[in-house]
Amino acid sequence: MSAAHSIDADELQETIDVARERKRARSTRIGKWEYLRFDAKVRFIPEGTALFGDDLIWGYPKIGRILQLEAGIAAQFEKPFWIEEKIDGYNVRIFRHGEDVLAITRRGYICPFTTDRVPDFIDIRIFGKHPELVLCAEVAGPDNPYNEGRPPFIPEDIRFYVFDIMRKGEPDFLPQREKRRLLEDYALPSVSRFGRYELPQLGEIKELMLKLDREGREGIVLKEDSPRDYRVKYVTGRINISDIRVSKGSVRQLPPEYFMHRILRLALFLEEHGLEVTPAIQRELGEALIDGIVGTVEQFREENKVLHGFRCRFRKRANAELMVRDMKSRLGKRQMRQRRLEKEADYYVLEFEKILPKTTGLLQNMLSGDVVFD
Amino acid sequence: MSAAHSIDADELQETIDVARERKRARSTRIGKWEYLRFDAKVRFIPEGTALFGDDLIWGYPKIGRILQLEAGIAAQFEKPFWIEEKIDGYNVRIFRHGEDVLAITRRGYICPFTTDRVPDFIDIRIFGKHPELVLCAEVAGPDNPYNEGRPPFIPEDIRFYVFDIMRKGEPDFLPQREKRRLLEDYALPSVSRFGRYELPQLGEIKELMLKLDREGREGIVLKEDSPRDYRVKYVTGRINISDIRVSKGSVRQLPPEYFMHRILRLALFLEEHGLEVTPAIQRELGEALIDGIVGTVEQFREENKVLHGFRCRFRKRANAELMVRDMKSRLGKRQMRQRRLEKEADYYVLEFEKILPKTTGLLQNMLSGDVVFD
Repeated sequence: MSAAHSIDADELQETIDVARERKRARSTRIGKWEYLRFDAKVRFIPEGTALFGDDLIWGYPKIGRILQLEAGIAAQFEKPFWIEEKIDGYNVRIFRHGEDVLAITRRGYICPFTTDRVPDFIDIRIFGKHPELVLCAEVAGPDNPYNEGRPPFIPEDIRFYVFDIMRKGEPDFLPQREKRRLLEDYALPSVSRFGRYELPQLGEIKELMLKLDREGREGIVLKEDSPRDYRVKYVTGRINISDIRVSKGSVRQLPPEYFMHRILRLALFLEEHGLEVTPAIQRELGEALIDGIVGTVEQFREENKVLHGFRCRFRKRANAELMVRDMKSRLGKRQMRQRRLEKEADYYVLEFEKILPKTTGLLQNMLSGDVVFD
Repeated sequence: MSAAHSIDADELQETIDVARERKRARSTRIGKWEYLRFDAKVRFIPEGTALFGDDLIWGYPKIGRILQLEAGIAAQFEKPFWIEEKIDGYNVRIFRHGEDVLAITRRGYICPFTTDRVPDFIDIRIFGKHPELVLCAEVAGPDNPYNEGRPPFIPEDIRFYVFDIMRKGEPDFLPQREKRRLLEDYALPSVSRFGRYELPQLGEIKELMLKLDREGREGIVLKEDSPRDYRVKYVTGRINISDIRVSKGSVRQLPPEYFMHRILRLALFLEEHGLEVTPAIQRELGEALIDGIVGTVEQFREENKVLHGFRCRFRKRANAELMVRDMKSRLGKRQMRQRRLEKEADYYVLEFEKILPKTTGLLQNMLSGDVVFD
C-alpha cells in the first residue's frame, strides 16, 4: 500500500483542485449536508474520499484477494500478520462532523439509514474525546438497504462490526494495539480477531478456515503486523455459493464473470483444503444458480419486471424519508418504489423495491420471442 | 435473411477487391491449395466465404436463436416451417474443386481431417453429375479434432449429417424438395427432418423437444417453407448442461457469458416446458460446473499446463501430417503437441493435445499466490 504517503497541505489542495476540474470530485448534497466526494481515484486520493469542510475522510482502500492460502501467504507476507474475520455486509466510515455523527458508504455517499442507526450500536462518546477518529465498520444483517445476502448468525435487523480506525486527514490505519484499546475502552462492536500468525502455523489457519466454512462465514482479512500494515483477504468456499444464491435476478445486472469467478474460487478452496466435491455441494451449487433464475423468470411473468425487496428500520422517520428521496434521485425514480413506511414498536419500518433494469430488459427480449445471435 | 441478394459480377469483383485491401479477405495456403478466404464480413459477403479460382463458396450464414418456443415461433414465422434436427458438431461445406473434393470449416479453412474422411460418408459421385453443388454438413462424434462434446448417439469415430445444399457462387440454399431429392438420389447421410409445422401444432413441437431433451440431443432448426427460407434455432435444456460439462478447463478460454447464457437457457427451457427444477438437475448442473474446474486445477498441478486431448483417424497418413502442420501454424507450435500417429487397421490414428494458454495463465497466477482485485 502506497497509503503511507506523507501529505503536504499544498499538494493536497492542488490535487483536490485537479479532481474538481476533471469532475472526479463532485459536490454532493444529501439532506442538509453538502460536501465534496471523490467519484474516482485522483493521484494519491482514493475513490470514496469525502471532504466535509475541513474534515477529510480518506477513502477505504481496496484490499487484494488471494485465491490460495499457502502460496498467497508465502508470496505476500514478510512478517507475522493478524487474522480478523471478514464480515459479509457493506463498508462504512463513521465520524463526527460538527454536531452530527455521520456514516458514509464505500463510495463516499452519506447513508441516511446507517447514520440513523449508529447510536444503536456505537458509543458515540468516543467522538467527544476523540473527534478526529474515523471508525471503519462493516454493517451486516437481513434488514439493510443494500445487500440481499447476510451472515447466517444475524437473524434480524443489522449489526455493526468495527475493523479499522483512521484519523481524519490521514490515509493510514491506527496500529492494532491502539485500535484494540479504543475498541475496548468504548466497548465497540468489532470483528473477531483470531490471533497473530505466520506461515509455519498454516495448519491452524487452515483449520480456522474450515471452521468458518462450515459455519457459513465469509472469510478472513490478513493484516501484516508491521509499519506497512499490508492486507489481503481470503474467503471460504461456501460463501461463493451464498454469493451466487443471493444474486438471483442479477444475472444481467452483475458482470458475467461474477458467477464464474465464484465457482472458480469454490473449486480452488475445495482443492487446496482437500475437500471432496460431494453430491451435496454439486446440488447446492446447481440450486444456487438455477433456482434464482427460474424464480426471476416467474417474477417477470407476474410483474413484468424483475425486482428485489428490501426492508430496514429507522429510529427517525425523517431519515427514512431522506433515504427514499436520496435513492430515488440516485437510481432514478422508476427504479425504486416505496412499499411501506410505518411505525412498529420503537422504529419506523421502511419497505421498498429496487427494480433491476438490465435483467428486466434481458427477459423482456428473451420472452418476446426475439432472436439472439451468439 | 438478406442472402437473396442478386449478385452482379462487377459488384462481386469490386467487393472482393475492397476485402483484399482491408485485409478481410486473405490469401490462404493449406497443403497444395491456395485460395482467398474471408476472415470477416465485407458488405454482402459473409465471413467464411472462400474463393478457389472461379469457385466461389459462399459463407454459411449465422442462424439466430430463439429462447422461447411459443413466443419465438409467433414472432418469427409468417408461414409454415420445416423442423430439422440440430446436431452438436462442427459445420463444414463440401464441394469439388478440379479433381479434389474438399471440406472447409465455418471460417473457411480447408480441414485436412474432414476432407480426408469425406469419401467414407459421402457418395462423391454427386459432384460428377452436379459439380456446382456445395453440401453443408455437420460433422459430429467423439473422434474429431475440434469439439470435446459429441452427441450421445455416436459411440465412436464421426458421422456426417448434410442439412443444406448450395450452389457455387450463390448464397441461397436449394429448396427443401430439391435438397430432399438429392439426398435420396445419392443416399447422403442427413439430419432428421421431423416435418412441416405451424404455430397451432405447438403441442406436438413441445413434445418433440421434450423427447430430444430426454435423449440428450441438441435441438432443432426451424426453416420457413417460403422463398425467404428464414431460419431460427432452438435448443433443449439438457444440452446446456452438456455444453457446460465439456467446457471444463475452458473457464478462461471461453467468454464468461458462455456459462451464464447456458444456465439462463436451461432455466427458460424448464420454465416454458413446465419442468420441475429437480435435485437431479441441480446436482447435474453443479457437477458440470465444478468437477471440470477441480479437474483442471489437478491437471495444472501435475502437468503445469491445461490441455485437452483429441484423437481422430485418417485414411491417408499425408492428411494427418498436413492436419498437424496446419494446426501448429495456426495455433502456434507450443499450443499443440502431437502424441501419436500410428496405423490401426485401415486408418492412421492421430492423437494430439491442444494447450489452453489463457486458462494455463489464469491458473499460473492464481496458484502462485498473487493477489487479484475484483
